[in-house]
Amino acid sequence: MKLSEMTREQLVEFKNEVQSEYDSFKARGLKLDMSRGKPCSEQLDLTMPMLDTLNSSSDLKSENGTDCRNYGILDGIPEAKKLFADILEVSADEVIVGGNSSLALMYDTITRAMLYGVVGSERPWCKEEKIKFLAPVPGYDRHFAICEKLGIEMINVPMTDNGPDMDIVEELVANDSSIKGIWCVPMYSNPGGTTYSDETVKRFASLKTAAPDFRIFWDNAYCIHHLSDTPDKLLNIMEECKKNGTENRVYIFTSTSKITFSGAGLAAMATSIENIADIKKSMTVQTIGYDKVNMLRHTRFFGNKENVFEHMKKHRAIIEPKFNAVLSALEAEIAPIGGCEWSRPNGGYFISFNAPKGCAKRIVELCKEAGVVLTGAGATFPYGKDPDDRNIRIAPTYPTVSDLSLATKLFCICVKLACAEKLLAE
Amino acid sequence: MKLSEMTREQLVEFKNEVQSEYDSFKARGLKLDMSRGKPCSEQLDLTMPMLDTLNSSSDLKSENGTDCRNYGILDGIPEAKKLFADILEVSADEVIVGGNSSLALMYDTITRAMLYGVVGSERPWCKEEKIKFLAPVPGYDRHFAICEKLGIEMINVPMTDNGPDMDIVEELVANDSSIKGIWCVPMYSNPGGTTYSDETVKRFASLKTAAPDFRIFWDNAYCIHHLSDTPDKLLNIMEECKKNGTENRVYIFTSTSKITFSGAGLAAMATSIENIADIKKSMTVQTIGYDKVNMLRHTRFFGNKENVFEHMKKHRAIIEPKFNAVLSALEAEIAPIGGCEWSRPNGGYFISFNAPKGCAKRIVELCKEAGVVLTGAGATFPYGKDPDDRNIRIAPTYPTVSDLSLATKLFCICVKLACAEKLLAE
Repeated sequence: MKLSEMTREQLVEFKNEVQSEYDSFKARGLKLDMSRGKPCSEQLDLTMPMLDTLNSSSDLKSENGTDCRNYGILDGIPEAKKLFADILEVSADEVIVGGNSSLALMYDTITRAMLYGVVGSERPWCKEEKIKFLAPVPGYDRHFAICEKLGIEMINVPMTDNGPDMDIVEELVANDSSIKGIWCVPMYSNPGGTTYSDETVKRFASLKTAAPDFRIFWDNAYCIHHLSDTPDKLLNIMEECKKNGTENRVYIFTSTSKITFSGAGLAAMATSIENIADIKKSMTVQTIGYDKVNMLRHTRFFGNKENVFEHMKKHRAIIEPKFNAVLSALEAEIAPIGGCEWSRPNGGYFISFNAPKGCAKRIVELCKEAGVVLTGAGATFPYGKDPDDRNIRIAPTYPTVSDLSLATKLFCICVKLACAEKLLAE
Repeated sequence: MKLSEMTREQLVEFKNEVQSEYDSFKARGLKLDMSRGKPCSEQLDLTMPMLDTLNSSSDLKSENGTDCRNYGILDGIPEAKKLFADILEVSADEVIVGGNSSLALMYDTITRAMLYGVVGSERPWCKEEKIKFLAPVPGYDRHFAICEKLGIEMINVPMTDNGPDMDIVEELVANDSSIKGIWCVPMYSNPGGTTYSDETVKRFASLKTAAPDFRIFWDNAYCIHHLSDTPDKLLNIMEECKKNGTENRVYIFTSTSKITFSGAGLAAMATSIENIADIKKSMTVQTIGYDKVNMLRHTRFFGNKENVFEHMKKHRAIIEPKFNAVLSALEAEIAPIGGCEWSRPNGGYFISFNAPKGCAKRIVELCKEAGVVLTGAGATFPYGKDPDDRNIRIAPTYPTVSDLSLATKLFCICVKLACAEKLLAE
């Protein structure tokens, strides 16, 4: 029975039952973590053979003859550039292979814009009176943290089933030249699991922007992270931009953090040739180049993108049951009480859960008190402020299936309890 | 006979002889590179066994239980922090272990100062009207390039046999609050091979600075890179700073770029606990952390600092003969003609050569035309401008001994030719 249809008496009874379930859970002293989108040990184990691809008798030369052990090459060895180019469906000369963190590449890119500007800038962004970014919400907390740290004001743009609300995006960027960029996770978005529609991608490519140096930070973190036999498809934004002559507008990012090792993978970015040349002018000052031996380790392990795709199937086999465990618990426990919504993603790392207004913080708090850590309520919004206090990001991949089932059971109890409390307080 | 003592006739004859030697060298079509301080293949081979320390059956947990394959840990795994702490003679909680490039750590550090300021700053450095750095000269071109890129004005400070001229340093920093920092390579300096005296280090630690947020960028790249049985000793600047309560003043950098793999080693920085805390507040926004698997690979390979020191002896055995080849050629060929000076370093990667005024560019040009690439004349000075056009940095490590002998032979011919040309033109 839906909570909204219960009499006050029924609701009190419901709450009391749930409260006693909660109390007995709390007494168990759990210590579980569903807070971050981290791969589990089994997933990391899949990549252990990669460590055997290079040993003391290996030839550590790149296919172009470069000794990967020594200094040299800013933008990555050719075979690594090609692998990422194939995955991102761009050309190898549109790729820079970085260190182990695409977040670091994004931070670096925006920092360079602050200090030096980008192709088309009238001045460094830090010399502008005010800079703003659009933040599709709910979104990725680490994107928002970069803007907050740099003093870039964020404007929330609601996500739809097709991506950010493009009517709003178009209106804002056309009229405000202080809006210099937007954060996008275009495929299996974090946390909603949404893949941007073809129309959304086309509208991004053809945006009329008041700022001459507007940039799309296209964080394609989950481009090949499918959880379905009928995966989503994302239109190639680089190709669309080229049709519109706007290819300097987009910075595409990805990494192998959720393909090989999260802490020791490869990150890459793709952008126009003109942007690449501009970036390399700064990179040559800022580093001696990224770890080429690790690039070689990755490319020798995979060989080609088809093998990467095969590898991803093994990831799916490990994490799909975890997503299903959460989703079926929500279906069984939360669907009946009504008032909540959640995503059923075809890929990516998260389930986005929307509680009734004003309940998210309370749910996270209840979970925490009973020993289950969730991503903080509000984290999916700029400045940690979810205006409706509704959204919770569930990250099912890291715990074991049995821990996850337990944590989800508790989560459902906390949702029920918070919802009942809320209705009773009204 | 010294050129300066020759009659014009003798000088013309000398020049003609050298010119014909040069011409026959040129005809050989050499293609040699003495431009960068890169280790040679044999040196890199020393570290090949490191690749065997981790394989598919290894336990990739840090000593604190962290799975190095996954996300987590900003400042490095404990064993890597300890190894660098031991090498730099600081405590492990004063260390951040970074990626594969200490240059990138330096760039990051100065960029953070630009964008956010440092402990003690009144505002971000980029909000100051003007920022200046002191540049001991001759020095390292990549340090200077960072300042130039960021629009930080550099003021030359001459090097003495004890380090930068501290009378000048003290005078400048006491009276100009726009001077925010200084670049130092305190041990086996690049290119001069000078190790700062105890007095110099003490004077750095007790500097009275007009800027409340003055910083010493202490690039201790060659701290254990000895070429002698009686190596130089550098006073511990962190300890000296602590005696003066100035420990927030110093950022120490080093790396294994010339210990393990130049392109795939570890970099580290050391500074006060207060600075570390401040830096980590930014780091948590800018990256998911550096490659912990590579940290583990290094610490398992070395175990402790004593083994690192043993490893460095093997490097010395490879490169010391190269230094000696250059030095004995200079002694035999250039000492007799007079007018030139060069360093005889106890360690590091370079020989600093001072030609007569106005000759350095010409020498580099002559070498280049005959197929030997040297570091560009002027590169050891800010903005590439050697006011006396004297200094040339010789990097003997990368070529084979036979290539190096050939290149040095040519270098000596070019020096003679340029000196003779110069005298004849006067």
